[in-house]
Parts: sequence; C-alpha cells; structure tokens
Amino acid sequence: MNLSLDVAADLRATAHELADAARAATLLHFRRAGLSAETKETERFDPVTVADRLSEQRMRAILARRRPQDGILGEEFGTVEGTSGLTWVLDPIDGTRGYLSGTPTWGVLISVADATGPIYGLIDQPYIGERFEGGFGQATVNGPMGRAALKTRAPRPLSEAILFSTFPEVGTPEEGAAFRRVAPKAKLVRYGTDCYAYALIAAGQIDLVIEAGLQAYDVQAPIAVIEAAGGIVTDWQGRPCPQGGRVLAAANRDIHAEALALLNAG
Amino acid sequence: MNLSLDVAADLRATAHELADAARAATLLHFRRAGLSAETKETERFDPVTVADRLSEQRMRAILARRRPQDGILGEEFGTVEGTSGLTWVLDPIDGTRGYLSGTPTWGVLISVADATGPIYGLIDQPYIGERFEGGFGQATVNGPMGRAALKTRAPRPLSEAILFSTFPEVGTPEEGAAFRRVAPKAKLVRYGTDCYAYALIAAGQIDLVIEAGLQAYDVQAPIAVIEAAGGIVTDWQGRPCPQGGRVLAAANRDIHAEALALLNAG
Repeated sequence: MNLSLDVAADLRATAHELADAARAATLLHFRRAGLSAETKETERFDPVTVADRLSEQRMRAILARRRPQDGILGEEFGTVEGTSGLTWVLDPIDGTRGYLSGTPTWGVLISVADATGPIYGLIDQPYIGERFEGGFGQATVNGPMGRAALKTRAPRPLSEAILFSTFPEVGTPEEGAAFRRVAPKAKLVRYGTDCYAYALIAAGQIDLVIEAGLQAYDVQAPIAVIEAAGGIVTDWQGRPCPQGGRVLAAANRDIHAEALALLNAG
Repeated sequence: MNLSLDVAADLRATAHELADAARAATLLHFRRAGLSAETKETERFDPVTVADRLSEQRMRAILARRRPQDGILGEEFGTVEGTSGLTWVLDPIDGTRGYLSGTPTWGVLISVADATGPIYGLIDQPYIGERFEGGFGQATVNGPMGRAALKTRAPRPLSEAILFSTFPEVGTPEEGAAFRRVAPKAKLVRYGTDCYAYALIAAGQIDLVIEAGLQAYDVQAPIAVIEAAGGIVTDWQGRPCPQGGRVLAAANRDIHAEALALLNAG
C-alpha cells in the first residue's frame, strides 16, 4: 500500500500516543508492593492481567478516536475489522512472566500492517523509558542515552555470534532439537529477555533470536523494527512470518542463512 | 565491628561516589556502535575489558583519596591490604556477557566487609539508572519510579515461587543436577539476569536465586542488600558464603529451607 507522507506521519504519531498510554498503564501495576496484599484479599487479582487489559483498553480508546477506519488485532480483546486496509496489531505486555518477576525486559508491542504484513512497528520498555521504532524509512531508539539510529550488526560467523531465546526449552521437543543444532555453535547464548531480544538485534547488539510458538502480535512489531534497521525475520523455512509460529530473526542475510541451514539439518 | 554513625555515613557516601563513577565509566562503552569498527582495527580491543578496568580504576582512585586505610578486593586489580579492618569488595561489571549483549541486567557491585562479612552493599544498574542498597539499618531502591524501601516477599510454597539463575546449565554436572531438583518444582524459572536477580529478591519480586561458581565480589553486595531487605543468602549447605561458590539466595527462611532440602536430596 502506498501511503502519503501525511498518513505515515499520522500513523507514527498515533503509535507514539498508544505507547505513551500503554507505558502509563503498565507502570501503574509494575512492582507495586501492594499487589501481594491485594492478592490475598481477592484471590483472583492478577496484576499482569489487570495491567494487560487496562493497557490494551486505553490503546483501543485512542484508536477509536484517531483511527476509527483501521482494524485492530489485540492480544486481550480480539479483532476489530477495519475499512482502510490497515490493521493495528497490539500486545499490551509482551513477556508477562518477566513483568510478573520485575525484570526490565518485557515490553509493549505496537505495529501497523497492510495486506503485505507489518509496515511500521514499535517496541517500548516502559520501566527503562526506552522506545525502539522502525518503518516509513527510519529506525531509531530513544532512551536513557538519548536518540540514536538503529542499525543491525555486520555479518560474522555463527561462532562469533550472540543468540537469544526466551526459554532454553524452545517449544516442542522437535523445535528444541532444532534450536540445539544452532545454539552450541554460537559464541554466546542468552535466555529470558522476551521482546527485548528483538530490540537488541535492531540495535546492533546481537545477531540472532530463535523462538517458537509465537502469535502475530508477538512478532509483527519486531519484524518492522528489525527490517527497518537492516535485519531479516522469517519462519524456520525462510518464509515471511507475520502470523508468528517459529521465528528466526537475524541481523543480516549471512547469519540468517547459516542459522536456517542448521535449523533444517535434522 | 561497631561503627559510629559518622563512619557509616561516610562509608555510604563513599559507596555512592564509587557507584556514580562506575556508572559513568561503564556507560562510556555500553552499546557504542563505534566499538565494532575499533575491534577491526585493533584486534585485541574488548569493550567489556576496557569498561571493566576503567570502572575499577576510577573506584580505586576514589578509595585512595577518601578511605586510604581500608582494604580493597576488586575483580580486575586484585587485593590491597588495609589497616582499618574494613575491605571494599568491587565488581565493576557483574554480567560481562549481558553487558556485551546490550541487556540492561548487568550491574556494578560495591560492598564493604568487616571480619564477619559484608555489612553494606550496593547494586547499581547504570543504563536504567537504578540503584539498590542495603546496610546500616536500611534497604532502599532509587530508580525510574523514585525511591522506595526494599522488602523481600512473604513466605509461599516453592510451587508458587519464582526462581532465577543466570544459565540453565548452573555450574558442574553435579551442581546442575542439584539445581534441577529444585527448578521443576517452582512456579516459574527465568534465566539470564546476572546480578539483577538478587536485586529482584530484595525488591520483593522473586523468591529464589540459585547459582554456582561465584566469586566473593559477585556475592558480597547481593548478600548485604538482600539481608537488609529481610532475605537470606547462604551456600548450598546453609552456611554463610561471603567467598562465593554455590549460592542460595532467598526471600525468607521458609522458602530457603524448602530449596535447601531439595538441593541436598540427591
């Protein structure tokens, strides 16, 4: 879809308004000492669920006002059909287990897709106050050290590469076996960062993320940010993966090809 | 050792001056895009080593001026004997692999020990701008959401608990086997956070950290912060562990006892 500059600017401004709202909503409940007391009183109180829903509700209210013609696919409240050909894809808290544990590597994922897939994406880490975005010809991070362009790492062999995944188990036993054909050949493997690992690819810090069992709302913002920064995101067969599933995100085509061959060497 | 209020205040002020210096030094090289270019030109350039050494040198210069009578044990430059009975224990970058990967969960560890072990400790995360400290009758965090008291979680069964460790392998095969007697019984296990996991125990977010192969400078600041916040840190036999080794850090005595029994059930 060819978008005018005005439309692109409005989509981007809308995404930032959504991210600001989600940042405030998610921090309302993050690391709040009172939560444990509340949990005792009302057994069903779950801070992640409450924050997740509040965050998505606030984003949907902004979209209803600013972009009523667009569709919405959100983790918590399902799908709204649109008429513009554009769909907002929202994950109000990616990494709920990290959120629950107090780590600073969960995030808010916001993206806009047309029929071809995500065209703009944003990864926000509310506690750090750090926002990665990519699309419409730019890729930037704005955080504790100011604003900077995002650019993925130059090619290097897998033996010199840094690989991230959320859990060492990585999906089904078969998926885990494929992951373990790649992991021991990397220089360094780290776990536990949720969506933050994709931001680190875009920021030129790491080379690969391999995950399985993802949803569309887990992967569309990372795809847009990483591709705008010069990287590549596909499934484990090298195909586009806007619907999620098995995901291989890479800093460049060389390391992508090396990892892809090993994933399929079983 | 009974310290006067004046001495305690000076130790605490010195620790903050050290942490400020280390924060600036470590951020000089964190996530700097130019590093990869420099690496090509001078093969031996290693940003972590450079940042690690610069950070510790700056801290040692402050100690030489402010506290020349105290001893120093640092990761990079060894031991300085003192005459005061107090020793500063410094890890300028705990979690060098996290630092290298761009994650925000490495940290600067600073503590003061007397003959009984650490009496004050500080865990600083420079990128987030977050500082956890404990000792001399207080335990606090100062970070993106302001200043707050630190208090560990109330007892809950292991089946409801959150357990962290840096790597899924956890030391030797024997140590890994002991870890895996505990891990599957926890509600949630997360990896990859380096010293930040200890801060999360102090902050009341998680219940347990189990690690092996630690050094004195890896564990003394966490011991001071966690104990000041109401938790307990021992080795895998339940003994004090100021020298590191196998470490079991817990939010309270109940969960500590439950984990300790399983570690030793092999």
